[in-house]
Amino acid sequence: MFLSKLSAYASSPIREDDIIASKLAKEGNKVIKLNSGDPARYINTPKRVIKAYIDALKRNENYYSNSQGIEPLRQAIAARHKKVYGLDAGPEKIVVTQGISEGLQFLNTALIDKGDKAILIRPYYPLYISYLQIVGGEAIFADAIEESNWNIDLDTLAKKAKNEKRIKYILITNPNNPAGYIISRKKLEEIVEFANEHDLFIISDEIYDELVYRGSFTSISQVAGDMPYMILNGMSKNFVATGFRLGYMFVPNEDEKSKALLAKLIELAQMRLSPNTPAQFAYAEGLRNLSAHNREVSKLRALLKERLYFATRRVNESDYMHALPPSSAFYVFPKLEMQRLKFKSDKEFVRSLLLEKYIQVTRGSGFGMPGHFRIVALPSKEVLGEAIERINEFCREHSVKR
Amino acid sequence: MFLSKLSAYASSPIREDDIIASKLAKEGNKVIKLNSGDPARYINTPKRVIKAYIDALKRNENYYSNSQGIEPLRQAIAARHKKVYGLDAGPEKIVVTQGISEGLQFLNTALIDKGDKAILIRPYYPLYISYLQIVGGEAIFADAIEESNWNIDLDTLAKKAKNEKRIKYILITNPNNPAGYIISRKKLEEIVEFANEHDLFIISDEIYDELVYRGSFTSISQVAGDMPYMILNGMSKNFVATGFRLGYMFVPNEDEKSKALLAKLIELAQMRLSPNTPAQFAYAEGLRNLSAHNREVSKLRALLKERLYFATRRVNESDYMHALPPSSAFYVFPKLEMQRLKFKSDKEFVRSLLLEKYIQVTRGSGFGMPGHFRIVALPSKEVLGEAIERINEFCREHSVKR
Repeated sequence: MFLSKLSAYASSPIREDDIIASKLAKEGNKVIKLNSGDPARYINTPKRVIKAYIDALKRNENYYSNSQGIEPLRQAIAARHKKVYGLDAGPEKIVVTQGISEGLQFLNTALIDKGDKAILIRPYYPLYISYLQIVGGEAIFADAIEESNWNIDLDTLAKKAKNEKRIKYILITNPNNPAGYIISRKKLEEIVEFANEHDLFIISDEIYDELVYRGSFTSISQVAGDMPYMILNGMSKNFVATGFRLGYMFVPNEDEKSKALLAKLIELAQMRLSPNTPAQFAYAEGLRNLSAHNREVSKLRALLKERLYFATRRVNESDYMHALPPSSAFYVFPKLEMQRLKFKSDKEFVRSLLLEKYIQVTRGSGFGMPGHFRIVALPSKEVLGEAIERINEFCREHSVKR
Repeated sequence: MFLSKLSAYASSPIREDDIIASKLAKEGNKVIKLNSGDPARYINTPKRVIKAYIDALKRNENYYSNSQGIEPLRQAIAARHKKVYGLDAGPEKIVVTQGISEGLQFLNTALIDKGDKAILIRPYYPLYISYLQIVGGEAIFADAIEESNWNIDLDTLAKKAKNEKRIKYILITNPNNPAGYIISRKKLEEIVEFANEHDLFIISDEIYDELVYRGSFTSISQVAGDMPYMILNGMSKNFVATGFRLGYMFVPNEDEKSKALLAKLIELAQMRLSPNTPAQFAYAEGLRNLSAHNREVSKLRALLKERLYFATRRVNESDYMHALPPSSAFYVFPKLEMQRLKFKSDKEFVRSLLLEKYIQVTRGSGFGMPGHFRIVALPSKEVLGEAIERINEFCREHSVKR
């Protein structure tokens, strides 16, 4: 066998139909892409962040940076966490990464040997499982129960975890992608308790922490106490700067596991030399003026909320799908009335939708929840309205009782 | 065990003393860093490349790009290889990566399961072995023989490879880092023949292909014919743009292995979404105007050659070390007269040199060649002269017959 066995786990459901979509667009079809959570396709990055980037380029900050990230950026990140969440930990606890994707890769390389396990909550962000499996890891699933307003079922998880010896971490996405829920403080405390009982590292992906429209968000840092944990975050969403490719891992605590993991993450970061250097100066400047950032993100939030709520209403007017109203991020995650449709799977649904109506969405099975699909609610209401209308028309054309 | 077993292979000899060096500098010592091959610390990126980067930022090209890299960049890369080396293959054969480091990671993830093997030529670039071992792979070494002007010993390699069943690839660095040799066309043909006999994929890291000062460089694409092979290259060195983090993998041929590997590399690229987007526009513009680039690189070459030759002469004036004159890149790789020095290892030599004389270089054992060390000959002649003088003084102070 030429390719490695493990590389069979390389998978990217969000982008798997990109080549088909490009082909359709080149043939002159009006393709509406609702697959990739990329706000920078629709909204501009704040001008002062662009200006800081340009200034760094003019100053020739083009060298390999410190592998952990430039000091001013890590200071700004630490200061933000202190100010917003009361987290008291220094810049030496932070590793700047080329997006959270790279963070996931470092995490799994650092912790997972073949046969090691990790707990993922369904629905999960697809890369969590790919990066786990590609190093030989296995997932144990907990479920966020749609019928109970996405409540995470820890009781069933406890039964599954009971006889497992090799679980390394539990990974939560709070606020959630794709389902848009936020985890209550009480539930977070239960998760910390669960992690404590099972001796697990807690990974909390909080990339949407500033895009919350209702309810109140609690960071893992506000409830974890002395437990070993890591926050994943970055500039892609809150700064509308996906293409800069900057995220970070924050491992604040002083326990043995946290220290060992942080040291290993720094070694892994050194191997790839550094993230893009001038972009780091832009991110540092973006965070340094927190009040300007808060004004920008408050406008952004209003805009995204309007589009998201609009798309959710339109989805729920349909006879073929329904979605719980999301509290955060910019995704609608409708459940399909599969028994009313002539499709064997959400994968078939999504592929046919693209080929027939030129709408690209992501299949729910890619998030561990078959029978669903994910809509990125970032385009204008006009485009979203047209897209959901086309999806409805498509459902009617493929309904069982036509 | 908390950390994964494989993560023990994370290693970065070039940067392993960075934290000590930073500490010494903070204490007010004049540290001379000759460890990292980073021209952008000393030389400016061409203005027109910076301008193209700024223009892309002003146009808000800040979204996730195509995972393989933006089309104009891949077209410019393909056009360059056609013009310079006569390679006839399209942009669809190219994957843009976040530096060659990411390319090495993709390569090993795609090909190597635990126990698979790869051939590396000693001295090798340290990341080759780290990225191989961290996925469970094992190295088989061939040697470039210093005494024979860095001739690669394929006869001994053939004996070692004879009973091996699981060798996936042979990786050459041409022009070489750290030893600065270039591989002759005849030797390249022998390597292709060897790869053919042993059914190996050929990986050719040609990142220094424009920084050749004597002799004539042959790209693997000029001798490989229909054999499966991949070129690694990028903008870090030729465009003095290390901090942009842009490299590429070029897999031009149409054989089954090349096609399977390319498809897998694209899947791995999709998992991490995209490289930095505005930087890709800068690189595309940099390559698009090849005549401007040739003028820039010709000046760069003259400057680097002068510094490199100067450093080599100074090294060879010493009683404690000598180096073959390099033909390319910007490294001197002296062999230490270990029997004249009171050090047990090159590692001890390098660490003590940093602590006592504030000079940071890289130990030869990090390149698979103990008893050597690598000097980055990028600073001004004044700085290089002072550094080599301090190294000499250090050797005298630790010589056996003081």
